[in-house]
Amino acid sequence: MTGMTDRPVTLNDVAEAAGVSLSTASKALSGTDRISPKTRQLVKNTAVQLGFRPNALARSFARGRSQTIGVLTQRASNVWSRVVLAGTALELGAADQAMLLYDARLNGADMAESVLDLRARRIDGVVVIGVGTSERAPSISGLFDVPVVHAFMRTENENDVTVTSDDVAIGRVAVTHLIKSGRRRIAHITGSAHDEAANTRAMGASEAMAEVGLEWATPVRFDRWSESWGERGTTAVLAEVPDVDAIFCGSDAIARGAERALRAAGRRIPDDVALIGVDNWEQLMHEQFSRHLTTVEVGLEQIGRRAARHLIHRDLEPGTHFVAPEVKLGVTT
Amino acid sequence: MTGMTDRPVTLNDVAEAAGVSLSTASKALSGTDRISPKTRQLVKNTAVQLGFRPNALARSFARGRSQTIGVLTQRASNVWSRVVLAGTALELGAADQAMLLYDARLNGADMAESVLDLRARRIDGVVVIGVGTSERAPSISGLFDVPVVHAFMRTENENDVTVTSDDVAIGRVAVTHLIKSGRRRIAHITGSAHDEAANTRAMGASEAMAEVGLEWATPVRFDRWSESWGERGTTAVLAEVPDVDAIFCGSDAIARGAERALRAAGRRIPDDVALIGVDNWEQLMHEQFSRHLTTVEVGLEQIGRRAARHLIHRDLEPGTHFVAPEVKLGVTT
Repeated sequence: MTGMTDRPVTLNDVAEAAGVSLSTASKALSGTDRISPKTRQLVKNTAVQLGFRPNALARSFARGRSQTIGVLTQRASNVWSRVVLAGTALELGAADQAMLLYDARLNGADMAESVLDLRARRIDGVVVIGVGTSERAPSISGLFDVPVVHAFMRTENENDVTVTSDDVAIGRVAVTHLIKSGRRRIAHITGSAHDEAANTRAMGASEAMAEVGLEWATPVRFDRWSESWGERGTTAVLAEVPDVDAIFCGSDAIARGAERALRAAGRRIPDDVALIGVDNWEQLMHEQFSRHLTTVEVGLEQIGRRAARHLIHRDLEPGTHFVAPEVKLGVTT
Repeated sequence: MTGMTDRPVTLNDVAEAAGVSLSTASKALSGTDRISPKTRQLVKNTAVQLGFRPNALARSFARGRSQTIGVLTQRASNVWSRVVLAGTALELGAADQAMLLYDARLNGADMAESVLDLRARRIDGVVVIGVGTSERAPSISGLFDVPVVHAFMRTENENDVTVTSDDVAIGRVAVTHLIKSGRRRIAHITGSAHDEAANTRAMGASEAMAEVGLEWATPVRFDRWSESWGERGTTAVLAEVPDVDAIFCGSDAIARGAERALRAAGRRIPDDVALIGVDNWEQLMHEQFSRHLTTVEVGLEQIGRRAARHLIHRDLEPGTHFVAPEVKLGVTT
């Protein structure tokens, strides 16, 4: 490293080397006062070159704050939770907050350990990240004397601050998109009838249909969140309602299967039958390339970001807050 | 919170309420001595109930260590980087290390700021997470006096500690799988010829073919990492080599397109033509459900975990370390 000596580099050394006053150097590094971007950059580059190490740890200790947020995940390697977690990590990092992640330690003995460890670290807040909206988790807000926010889950305590996906709105925006594009004979193929997300999306969709005087072309088909079910379900729908002109699939996996069944039956997408899924899952595969199927983006990264932002600004009221879903148009070829 | 009083709860209060000696309570909470799991749990639960707050921040300050790792990402919301990041976060959390994530601050002015901020926080190490292996990033190890490890990237300094994916091995395991299942007329459809991953995978695959005296049934087709290219490329392969019996696709997106072209041509998968992709991308969609296509798992989460583990155990030599890829069998229906 350039400029490393036995004696620690002081702010004075930085000021001297940069050719500015001590007070200017201090302002440049603290970012708390008005100073030209050029001078600020000069001082910072000089500080890096000399190996200057300001001590935020001491400040942090003096204030009794750790600038660290505890993040408790039900299962961080869950495909969807991982996106929420990334949103949380990004938002915390942007606010100079570190995160201490404890995964799968929300039960019994592990939970007590997590609570003690987080208290010991003097964390400034807690984000709890779940695996979806289907079950109500026990509330743990009372175990901490710092703010706790829940993301991508609901708890048994309606006063807990929670940010999650809006399954009613997901169902509504999906069929509203189909209706606006002129479709009238719409079917719905989705996950298990015992799954809350499947039910709530179906309910939101049914409401939006009813509001314009429409009914499903065939009763909603519940089964599982799989591609093969999408294929079988669609084949059954085509047999029952040959002139179906749109299918709302409860997930993109189901939509993929539906696409295959429609192609096999010689139907063009979207000319003959429009398809819409949920999850914006293709974005995970294609990224910069064109999207294949139309879908509803649930807003997982936004959920993680919004929850984290609450710990910085403390701006959410007690209760459940929803992130709005968004239709993403596909280019089916 | 139960047991909150004006006076802070002491370890003595916890010991008394749990009916154990002060020394037993201390051992139970520090985890440094042998003590029965039952007693340990009793003390911990009591500590949580009473609202006991041990002070690790003071210890941390006294030792001049922050128990915090800096994580610098090129682009954390990149689909693949996000998985690496989750692996890093999980591994650090399991070792009680917090992570401070700075995203997209690896250039110029932002970089100087990141370095100063991380030094100020007295971080114990740095993980730099890239977006793949194709470009050599400038080395930043010299800017820190704590260990730096790079994940899912390479740097211009061959002595930097780096953990990344093994594209040669990915190509090798893919075609070895096809050869072992009796295929001989194998084609390869992949991303751009200007992409290092595409080239390196093709090279590894070609080597494995040559070792058993095989040549590609048709020259390797390079173009882009997209589903539509997979479809077009496969149609072209079928026109040129009608009896092709296997296609190695450079990514799962390409494999999806290949699958569509094979179905349209009336070929059964894998009976007539075996398919193998790369990325284990379907796991992102299906998770607990059965996999559709056979693929090569690159090991992204493992990359993030291994890099993080190095900061805890300091057990990697300078240089590049590869995570071994793994074939995941699909159930093509």
